Amino acid sequence: MKIAVDAMGGDQAPEEIVKGSVLAAREHRVEIALVGPVEILEQELAKHDRANASLEIVAADEYLIEGEHPAFALRTKRNASVVVATRLVKGGRADAVVSAGPTGGVVAAALQILGSVEEIARPVVGGPFLGFAPNTVMMDLGGNVDCRPDQLLDFAIVGTVYARKLLNIENPTVGLLSIGAEEGKGNEQNRESYPIFQKCGLNFIGNVEGNDIVSGRANVIICDGFVGNILVKFCEALGKTICGWLENKLNGKLPEGEIKEMSDSLLMATNAADALGGGPLWAVDGVAVVAHSRSKSTEIARAIAQAKLAVELDLVGTLKSELAAARKKLQ
Amino acid sequence: MKIAVDAMGGDQAPEEIVKGSVLAAREHRVEIALVGPVEILEQELAKHDRANASLEIVAADEYLIEGEHPAFALRTKRNASVVVATRLVKGGRADAVVSAGPTGGVVAAALQILGSVEEIARPVVGGPFLGFAPNTVMMDLGGNVDCRPDQLLDFAIVGTVYARKLLNIENPTVGLLSIGAEEGKGNEQNRESYPIFQKCGLNFIGNVEGNDIVSGRANVIICDGFVGNILVKFCEALGKTICGWLENKLNGKLPEGEIKEMSDSLLMATNAADALGGGPLWAVDGVAVVAHSRSKSTEIARAIAQAKLAVELDLVGTLKSELAAARKKLQ
Repeated sequence: MKIAVDAMGGDQAPEEIVKGSVLAAREHRVEIALVGPVEILEQELAKHDRANASLEIVAADEYLIEGEHPAFALRTKRNASVVVATRLVKGGRADAVVSAGPTGGVVAAALQILGSVEEIARPVVGGPFLGFAPNTVMMDLGGNVDCRPDQLLDFAIVGTVYARKLLNIENPTVGLLSIGAEEGKGNEQNRESYPIFQKCGLNFIGNVEGNDIVSGRANVIICDGFVGNILVKFCEALGKTICGWLENKLNGKLPEGEIKEMSDSLLMATNAADALGGGPLWAVDGVAVVAHSRSKSTEIARAIAQAKLAVELDLVGTLKSELAAARKKLQ
Repeated sequence: MKIAVDAMGGDQAPEEIVKGSVLAAREHRVEIALVGPVEILEQELAKHDRANASLEIVAADEYLIEGEHPAFALRTKRNASVVVATRLVKGGRADAVVSAGPTGGVVAAALQILGSVEEIARPVVGGPFLGFAPNTVMMDLGGNVDCRPDQLLDFAIVGTVYARKLLNIENPTVGLLSIGAEEGKGNEQNRESYPIFQKCGLNFIGNVEGNDIVSGRANVIICDGFVGNILVKFCEALGKTICGWLENKLNGKLPEGEIKEMSDSLLMATNAADALGGGPLWAVDGVAVVAHSRSKSTEIARAIAQAKLAVELDLVGTLKSELAAARKKLQ
């Protein structure tokens, strides 16, 4: 299997990206195509022991920088590293692409070059986001706002594939995030979506409420990206604040190391989306993994491992067949 | 000042309601009209020392019970205690009404008998809900879903009056809860509301995000009741879960009492809406305070004190003039 890596994407590029790629090539037994300016990448590669690591360099002289407008950047930099890397996937010369570059640019390149599956206009963002509910994924977390019921259904299908394939849950339960458990409770979007969810063939358990996110009552929780994004940012900030409060309260009462350990563990549990450091762009017609812009080598290696897993599990193919099945049921 | 108290509303009625009323009459120097079946209330009153406490009984033979449909209950029980108590306010024989009865019934009675101010169809629910941000109120927390921009503006005016009068903040900052700070970010509801908020004369500071709820960046945070309700329930459940995790982690490492104190303090901070135990029904044309159904005497006394404060601060009159001023600016 070959993974194309945008060697110029991310705050720590190219040093940490190249280092992480060497690591992944050796540990995860994948071939890596490092995409970027040849001379720079040769210099970086020369710093590493490449025994048991299969890497090649693919030339791309330009790259995107943080803060550029994605669409404009892609128009003016037709040979940007992320574009060239994504084209390798489209051309069948790589199985997946990984980038820690500006998310907007990675998404735009993926959609332009690979396209999206089954009329889903934008990638679906989601996954586990709360350590206290490790078997719950929430979709969408910010990619899509003002959603129609059929879009929410798409999120539910993506979430079901996510939970089944990546969390090994055989028949994931699906809940619609609302205020009130009964059908008819919630906003207009909920009320219109409920009957569609009942008919689509997913393991729909009805509405779930804010507290159910924490209890893990459903494996897949569906909301639009407006609600999801607010919730995740609230959760991350609340977690950080409670960590500070906890450190302060325990100061002088427990050994420093123990306090730090507790605080770190709480931080991980409440900042799980951040801790994952990225993931596959769901609904893109090909495997494209976005890594956090501040990723260091170990995170890059983990992102590459995620891409490998996505290819092995055939996430894209599974998603396509699930979408087709659900849409058939609704006809 | 006279407060009408629904002596039959709440899980602990009439014992704790009467006890709390006697307490409030003495401590807060208000006259109390206890509304309910005369014989029962006379028996209850006889249990207490009524020195320095001014209380009278107003007859009402029926009362609402939890689980009844509010509108139906009010139609069939025209002399329910909450109805008689609310009518005392309408008739000028009391300044405010307090009830721990079923919220739906209290709201319905208040709207039917007292009406609402300035075309606000339903009461606005909100207040401080996170102990870590004590100078922030959030509106709406569940009373109103699928809101138009002018409704969100009403919430902002209620929130501004709340923060100014009850939190003593002179010129409260107002933020619109969204995903992304710039104008134009967020969902359609946000994008339409932003320019209206800019023109209305409130101290509008633009969009705020999920993390800003925790940091207290705005004194008044505006969202619809769908988002607000999900957030509050999520926050309460997450707080409880973290308390359990904390107790477990600290078990054996700190004295039990210290662990309990930390856990209780965290619970209060994350369940602040619950801890407040109710408050005035904002946008009702008169002071009606809803207390938590499980209120005991001390909570009832606190709710009566809240009603007294609302009358003294002329919350209803202030709200009316603020609404009129904002609407004039928008013409």
